[in-house]
Amino acid sequence: MKSISIIKIGGKVINDAAKLSEALDSFCKIPGGKILIHGGGSEASSMAKKMDVPVTMIEGRRITDDAMLEIVTMIYAGKVNKNIVAQLQARNCNALGLSGADGNTIESVRRPVKEIDYGNVGDVKNVNGVAIANLLKGGFVPVFCALTHDGKGNMLNTNADTIASEIAKTLAKSYQVKLCYTFELKGVLQNFEDKNSVIPLIKGDEFQDMKAQKVVNEGMIPKIHNALEASKNGVQKVFICQYSNMNQAETGTQLCYQ
Amino acid sequence: MKSISIIKIGGKVINDAAKLSEALDSFCKIPGGKILIHGGGSEASSMAKKMDVPVTMIEGRRITDDAMLEIVTMIYAGKVNKNIVAQLQARNCNALGLSGADGNTIESVRRPVKEIDYGNVGDVKNVNGVAIANLLKGGFVPVFCALTHDGKGNMLNTNADTIASEIAKTLAKSYQVKLCYTFELKGVLQNFEDKNSVIPLIKGDEFQDMKAQKVVNEGMIPKIHNALEASKNGVQKVFICQYSNMNQAETGTQLCYQ
Repeated sequence: MKSISIIKIGGKVINDAAKLSEALDSFCKIPGGKILIHGGGSEASSMAKKMDVPVTMIEGRRITDDAMLEIVTMIYAGKVNKNIVAQLQARNCNALGLSGADGNTIESVRRPVKEIDYGNVGDVKNVNGVAIANLLKGGFVPVFCALTHDGKGNMLNTNADTIASEIAKTLAKSYQVKLCYTFELKGVLQNFEDKNSVIPLIKGDEFQDMKAQKVVNEGMIPKIHNALEASKNGVQKVFICQYSNMNQAETGTQLCYQ
Repeated sequence: MKSISIIKIGGKVINDAAKLSEALDSFCKIPGGKILIHGGGSEASSMAKKMDVPVTMIEGRRITDDAMLEIVTMIYAGKVNKNIVAQLQARNCNALGLSGADGNTIESVRRPVKEIDYGNVGDVKNVNGVAIANLLKGGFVPVFCALTHDGKGNMLNTNADTIASEIAKTLAKSYQVKLCYTFELKGVLQNFEDKNSVIPLIKGDEFQDMKAQKVVNEGMIPKIHNALEASKNGVQKVFICQYSNMNQAETGTQLCYQ
C-alpha cells in the first residue's frame, strides 16, 4: 500500500507570511505523495469589513449568507489558495489548487436548518477518492481550500479540519494515510503554560477523562475529536503537531481511537 | 492523433448569468476532450471600485499594481472560476479550475517596463503540455482563468485570449486542436450593421487588405490577429464564433494563416 501524508494548516499560520513560508518549507520536505488543506484565517472577515458585509459567528462557526459566500470563495479559492500554490511551485513542489467543486472532488449537502441557519454551509457527503488518486498519479500535489459544492451549481463553505479528516478517511481505503493537523503549538499540551509539555499520545478512552478533568484547553476539543474520529474510521496515523515540524516522522501528539 | 477543443469565453458573456448558462450548455455538448478559458469581465473593476482601488486601463489593457493583482486573483481564480466549475459540474461535465500556477501549467515572465509599466502582468513563457495532457487523461476538463505565475512565487495577470492561443499552440504538437474564440456576435461581420453578414473564412493575406480597407471593426483586430497567429503556429482549426454555438462543428468565421 502506498503511503500518503495529508496536512492541514490553519488560519493563524496562513495570516503570517513568515510562518506560512516556514510551513511550506516543512511541507515540501515531506517525502512521497501528499495533500495540503488550508483554512482561510481571518482574511474573509477583514474583506467583509472592507465591503460592509456583516460578519456573524456562532460558537466559532461562520454564518455564510450569499454575500459572505462570495467573499469566502474569493478569499479561500482565489487569494489564499493561489498564493500557497504559487509559493509551493517556487519550491519545486507541483501544487495544484482545488475546491471541492474542481474535479467533483468533494460533494456536500447544504446543512439543514435546525436551531441555527448557517446559510451556505456544506456537510461533506462524498469525497471522490478516484479523482484525487488520478491527480496524485498525474504527479500533482493537491492543495484544497475550505470550499465544497452541492453538485447543483452552488459552492458551499465547509470547515477545513473536516475536509482534512474526510479526505483522510476516504484515502485510507487505498493508501497508508498519515493525517496531521498543524498549528502554532508543539502538540496538545498537558499544561498550557508550559509550551513543551506535549502529550505524546491520546487514546479515545483517555480523551473522555481529559475532557472531564479539563486537562485540555477548550479550543482543542473539536480538533482532538476530529482527529480521533479519523483514527476510528481507519486513518492509520493521526497527529496534532507544529506547522514547522510537519515533515518529521513522529512529532507532536499522536491520536489513536483504540 | 486525438482531437481536442479549446474554447475561450469572454467577459460580456461571463457577466450575464443567462448568457453564461447558454455558453456552458453549448460547451457541454462538445464531444471529446476540451478545455475552457475565461476572462474576468468587468467584475474586477467593479470590485476595485468597491474597495477604493483605482482602475487604470491603457489601450484596453489593465495596469495591475499589487492591490489590483489581489483583486484579479480573487475574482478570476475565486469567484468567476469556481462559479463556472460548479455550474459545469452540475451539468455532469468534470470541470477542474486552474490558474497557470496550478500544476505549473503556464509560466510567464513579468512584462518588461518600456513606455508603460503594466505592473504584475505576465507574458507567457511556457505552457506545460505534459501537465495538461495528464489532467485530460485523468478525465478532467481544465477550466483556465486569466492568471499565470512566474515560478518565483508570484501570480501574474495574463490576457485570456493569449492564454487560449498559447495553450492551443502547445497542444497542437500532440493533439488535433480546434481553437474557438467565442463572443456575442455570430462571427466576424462583413457589415457591422448586419448581424448575419458573417465572413466564413479569413486568410492571413486577406486580413492585411481588410485592415487597410477598414472592413473589420477595430475591436476585432487583436482577436483576428491572435487567431491567425495560432493558425500560423500549427493550430489545425481556428474559429471566431458565437458563445451559444460553440458546439457546432463549423460555425462563425474560420481563420487560416495560409
